[in-house]
Amino acid sequence: MADLLPVNPYRGTRDFLPEEMAVRQAVFSKFYKVIETYGFQRYDGPLLEPAEIYEAKSGREIADQQLYTLTDRSGRRLALRPEMTPSVARIVARFAGQLDFPLRWYSHVNCFRYERPQRGRVREHWQINCDIFGSESEVCEIEIFDLVHDLMAAVGATREQYVLRVNCRVIAESAMRHIVGVPEESLPQVFQVVDRWEKVTEEERVADLAEAGLDDKRIERLNEVLTGDGGFVDELPADELADSNIAKLLKRDERNLFKFDPLIIRAFEYYTSTVFEVFDTDPVNRRSLFGGGRYRDLAGLFTTQKIPGIGFGMGDVTVLDFLETHGLLPTPRIGSDVAVIPVKAQLNEAARTVTRSLRAAGIKTILPLVERSLSAEMKRAGRNGCRAAVIIGENEWHRRAVTVRDMRTGEQSEVPSDQVVDRVTQILQAEPGTD
Amino acid sequence: MADLLPVNPYRGTRDFLPEEMAVRQAVFSKFYKVIETYGFQRYDGPLLEPAEIYEAKSGREIADQQLYTLTDRSGRRLALRPEMTPSVARIVARFAGQLDFPLRWYSHVNCFRYERPQRGRVREHWQINCDIFGSESEVCEIEIFDLVHDLMAAVGATREQYVLRVNCRVIAESAMRHIVGVPEESLPQVFQVVDRWEKVTEEERVADLAEAGLDDKRIERLNEVLTGDGGFVDELPADELADSNIAKLLKRDERNLFKFDPLIIRAFEYYTSTVFEVFDTDPVNRRSLFGGGRYRDLAGLFTTQKIPGIGFGMGDVTVLDFLETHGLLPTPRIGSDVAVIPVKAQLNEAARTVTRSLRAAGIKTILPLVERSLSAEMKRAGRNGCRAAVIIGENEWHRRAVTVRDMRTGEQSEVPSDQVVDRVTQILQAEPGTD
Repeated sequence: MADLLPVNPYRGTRDFLPEEMAVRQAVFSKFYKVIETYGFQRYDGPLLEPAEIYEAKSGREIADQQLYTLTDRSGRRLALRPEMTPSVARIVARFAGQLDFPLRWYSHVNCFRYERPQRGRVREHWQINCDIFGSESEVCEIEIFDLVHDLMAAVGATREQYVLRVNCRVIAESAMRHIVGVPEESLPQVFQVVDRWEKVTEEERVADLAEAGLDDKRIERLNEVLTGDGGFVDELPADELADSNIAKLLKRDERNLFKFDPLIIRAFEYYTSTVFEVFDTDPVNRRSLFGGGRYRDLAGLFTTQKIPGIGFGMGDVTVLDFLETHGLLPTPRIGSDVAVIPVKAQLNEAARTVTRSLRAAGIKTILPLVERSLSAEMKRAGRNGCRAAVIIGENEWHRRAVTVRDMRTGEQSEVPSDQVVDRVTQILQAEPGTD
Repeated sequence: MADLLPVNPYRGTRDFLPEEMAVRQAVFSKFYKVIETYGFQRYDGPLLEPAEIYEAKSGREIADQQLYTLTDRSGRRLALRPEMTPSVARIVARFAGQLDFPLRWYSHVNCFRYERPQRGRVREHWQINCDIFGSESEVCEIEIFDLVHDLMAAVGATREQYVLRVNCRVIAESAMRHIVGVPEESLPQVFQVVDRWEKVTEEERVADLAEAGLDDKRIERLNEVLTGDGGFVDELPADELADSNIAKLLKRDERNLFKFDPLIIRAFEYYTSTVFEVFDTDPVNRRSLFGGGRYRDLAGLFTTQKIPGIGFGMGDVTVLDFLETHGLLPTPRIGSDVAVIPVKAQLNEAARTVTRSLRAAGIKTILPLVERSLSAEMKRAGRNGCRAAVIIGENEWHRRAVTVRDMRTGEQSEVPSDQVVDRVTQILQAEPGTD
């Protein structure tokens, strides 16, 4: 006999059995519903894209180390999308002439990154992307932040359990120049240190900043800017902040929507002003859940038309981990509503007739697929979540009747076959599901 | 300036704008709903799988020419799944010890085949897979055929518009042996000719069959078997048909569920008895829409446990083409329900307050993201499908009132801000959507 192949999925990818899938779907449905009340419309695009759309623009980390690439039989170099932004930029550029900007678009897609699998990191993940294209107004920031809070609320998270940390690269660059005194050429290096600020020790930070050319005084000022209350923003030249929607919001009531936080920089992404990230506030689990930002010119790789955008990508792994950690995972009812059980194989056709009437009424109905005893089938119906069982007995069926059992109370009664749907519906409504 | 990158998707893949996506989602939702009334539960699995699970078992055509493969950084040879069956076989084998057989499982996944793009063929397609695992009973065939008809009915297809053609390889092999007299070693070659029967000329068929070692008399008998009414089944040795559920159903009322058709053979797939295919009956478009079959030992690559299965995979392209050809595509309402429009930017905050109350009530609500005139925004609301508009004027807002306009009738009236949700709900209910 040939050797058996391994049953485990490829490293960093996942199998979802129906129980887990039902939980995922319950969470995603809540997200879709909120996103759609915001007027976002769903689009979709290919998993395979020309490799150059990532190599040209994505953060170097992705293109160099994390991209899954392949070459097709005609020599075309392709990549499995590591994120949706380059695809949606291409799509928006492709149809720009016929689209009614501004757009509110969302998608939910599988993405691939070659990562060392660890908590919160997998190689195939599912990401919900929400973007507004075609507006530079700070109204977009407000919409997106409101949406973030409503998404979190929809899955039961309170404002104490997470924090929306927001920064603006325009503010950050201005502060680096005018308050810290970072030389222009050191900016990228300094931002990379800021990006890792909470992940490394103070000693490492100081060493890295010194290497970037910052003396002790500048390092101290940087420390003050990053860890203070953001009061420094008022000291920055107003003309430099003209493009900063966050600078505008900081002077208004909407600043309550977020925590201004100069540590959020997302150095490896290609945002141009607003950047934000949602964090778990649990002290033992202060992880980033998801984030996003604003692009001045989203589709510049594909078109000369300037299309600004703001949005975020929310991956399934961190969000579902968060919900699990906080005891917020939903417990959807899985399985079926009712089992139709003929007491012998000769009654299979009768069972099928009853089953079809129940299904036609939208009731999730199963019937036995192997011959088993009535009691074995009743047990299976219970394991399957059925709240009613319809037993087809020979004598009853002769007078066109069946026995309907309420699986919760154990009560059962004979019901004319043309009233089965009504009786089962009654039982199902008496104990509403949780999904 | 750098050259712009092309905006078209990779050959054979597709971008879906919201209008098309809404149609797709409307169709898929109908399918999911029917599938779930049959007690099928959704699962999911990875797009990337070890390449050997396809090379070991799939039809040669797929492994040799149609598989997208890549090698990861640790030298692992992977493939983009061309179909779901090997994945689900692996998953079922992996969890066999904890699963409550028989299972009714479904999935909806993207699959890749390297094909020359043409009508009905793309490189990335979305496939709904429905399978029953763990039962050899003909009840499964009945369930699957009932499901096929209910799926077609759910999208509005009548029994005249399509035909479910069913065959059984056990019957076919027995007929080849006992009626046609095909030598054992020629069976695969003859089945390949049968598989292409309707795609080639009679001359080609005769030449291919002669090459397979069939003389004129045998070719004539083969012709009779393939194009007759199936009466030959009664002449076959009963013991050889013991494993044929189709042979059983042919003697029962359930034979009305399908057209028995010896031409359906699906030679390139790895089914072992029942095989079936749904065809468009339109004479100018007699294409296969989708199909499936039964496996005696689904997961033999992965486990010594014998797990029989029957199921089908339904691709998006052929099914949506069918619906379009027959004028059956749904016309879901897309866009939003209501637009909240402040007459000046100073009223943005008021607009946001009203918007939030509408969204909290589950109403799809948009507000302006760029500054435009009231009339421009009203036009946009119309294009966006809004059935109501809420206009926030300065004087009204001072007395906490707004103007609500019914976009269909043009009627508008002043409404206290705390009654906006009720008034908008009234307008929305007066003209129910089509989705």
